[in-house]
Amino acid sequence: MSAPKRQKSSKDVPYELIYWPGIPGRGEHIRLALEEAGATYTDTAQIEKGIEQVTAQIDEGNVGDDFNPPPFAPPILRHGDLLISQTSNILLYLGPRLGLVPSEDDEEHPDALYKVNALALTALDGLSNEVHDCHHPIATGLYYEDQKEEAKRKSKDFVENRLPKFLGYFERVLQGKASGEGPWLYGGRLTYADLVVFQCLDGTKFAFRKAVAAAEKSGKYAHVFKLYDAVKERPRISEYLASKRRQDYSMGIYRYYEELDFGPEGRD
Amino acid sequence: MSAPKRQKSSKDVPYELIYWPGIPGRGEHIRLALEEAGATYTDTAQIEKGIEQVTAQIDEGNVGDDFNPPPFAPPILRHGDLLISQTSNILLYLGPRLGLVPSEDDEEHPDALYKVNALALTALDGLSNEVHDCHHPIATGLYYEDQKEEAKRKSKDFVENRLPKFLGYFERVLQGKASGEGPWLYGGRLTYADLVVFQCLDGTKFAFRKAVAAAEKSGKYAHVFKLYDAVKERPRISEYLASKRRQDYSMGIYRYYEELDFGPEGRD
Repeated sequence: MSAPKRQKSSKDVPYELIYWPGIPGRGEHIRLALEEAGATYTDTAQIEKGIEQVTAQIDEGNVGDDFNPPPFAPPILRHGDLLISQTSNILLYLGPRLGLVPSEDDEEHPDALYKVNALALTALDGLSNEVHDCHHPIATGLYYEDQKEEAKRKSKDFVENRLPKFLGYFERVLQGKASGEGPWLYGGRLTYADLVVFQCLDGTKFAFRKAVAAAEKSGKYAHVFKLYDAVKERPRISEYLASKRRQDYSMGIYRYYEELDFGPEGRD
Repeated sequence: MSAPKRQKSSKDVPYELIYWPGIPGRGEHIRLALEEAGATYTDTAQIEKGIEQVTAQIDEGNVGDDFNPPPFAPPILRHGDLLISQTSNILLYLGPRLGLVPSEDDEEHPDALYKVNALALTALDGLSNEVHDCHHPIATGLYYEDQKEEAKRKSKDFVENRLPKFLGYFERVLQGKASGEGPWLYGGRLTYADLVVFQCLDGTKFAFRKAVAAAEKSGKYAHVFKLYDAVKERPRISEYLASKRRQDYSMGIYRYYEELDFGPEGRD
């Protein structure tokens, strides 16, 4: 039995982001890419009962459709008949379509997509997943209060060891020749990896205020903070950040708990 | 300043896997893809002083080269002038080259790469990263013994909540129409996502013997275990698994600690 034919997603079809309303979360990486490109998109965070679209997708009875496996978790992108999940995967799809990665025939930047994807994956691992795990080190299904002591231990380690490791890594990337001229991570031009690092650092700054302030002040990661500022100042990003479409951090990946806000030499 | 020209990676150049010797680890996903395809490759796990290649790549002084940012961590793939990291990213590069994903012009399986990539990412998140975190919930830099109590709490939650969630997810994928005929996850043919799920389940089975045995016996995830067996029986995979190139699980992602080996209703 062969699968029924379908239409290829047309360029004219708007992008649909399916993500939890009320938090920037992992959906924010998709929003920043769409906003920077000035793309037309819908967002379940901005639609009444948008949450029902999210829960229907991740329902335990959903087995997907003829062309798409069911998604495990949001963010989910629908584009015509295509429905895909996983943050880095959606960015991989959008990157070339939105002009946020050197094109395949750019001979000066061969295989750019794999390099940009690796940078995005590394930022998402270190400054999104690990930051989330700081307040939920034992179980995502348990309340923070039920893993508070473990959260303190993990946060202290994050601030002392992991944060400097990831900031140091991106500082090295920015110092390397492959990053090219200017403030960007790869090829001397803005790619979606820059947007990901911006958002990850912005969230980490919200959660670990003391540690990120101290890191900035130390001067050791000057290129990273320059990249952060450069993204923030992009006209469309700056307009977006000031708009109501940008949601506040609340109870998502990036949360503020005073007792977890360790400085680089412990809480003071 | 434009970057110097370089040669595109030739198809005739062998693949070079740079990964820690002594554990299957995340490198194993790359090995299985190369082995299934019968590709020519070198592996630092099989080379004297191979470990020095790994440490040189992740050295804090490495800023990459003219074309490639430095890698954050292994596995790393070198192919001609290209050097990339991140497990799912390497598989994304290898997939089309090794015939482990429907090609771009396969009209019956449009945008297959994004669907296969999402499945691989989900398996790596749930049945590799989370299993690793079961024995290291607080800090990767601390000994297991220094986070043993937290590891017990996390492992119990993994067995009771996370393992059924991920197995249930892949069971749904396999029941859905997009999986096509036969035992495979997508499009009625073997893709690298199948190899990833096989390896993740194999490792999880090693770490959580009781829970995975009970899951298999329950019959609730019959398609998942059928997929596992189907991969294991592939002629090249089966030959590889019996060879000396397949390393034993030891102190990597998948470890056996009796005190973490909870059954589905707790330790017995």
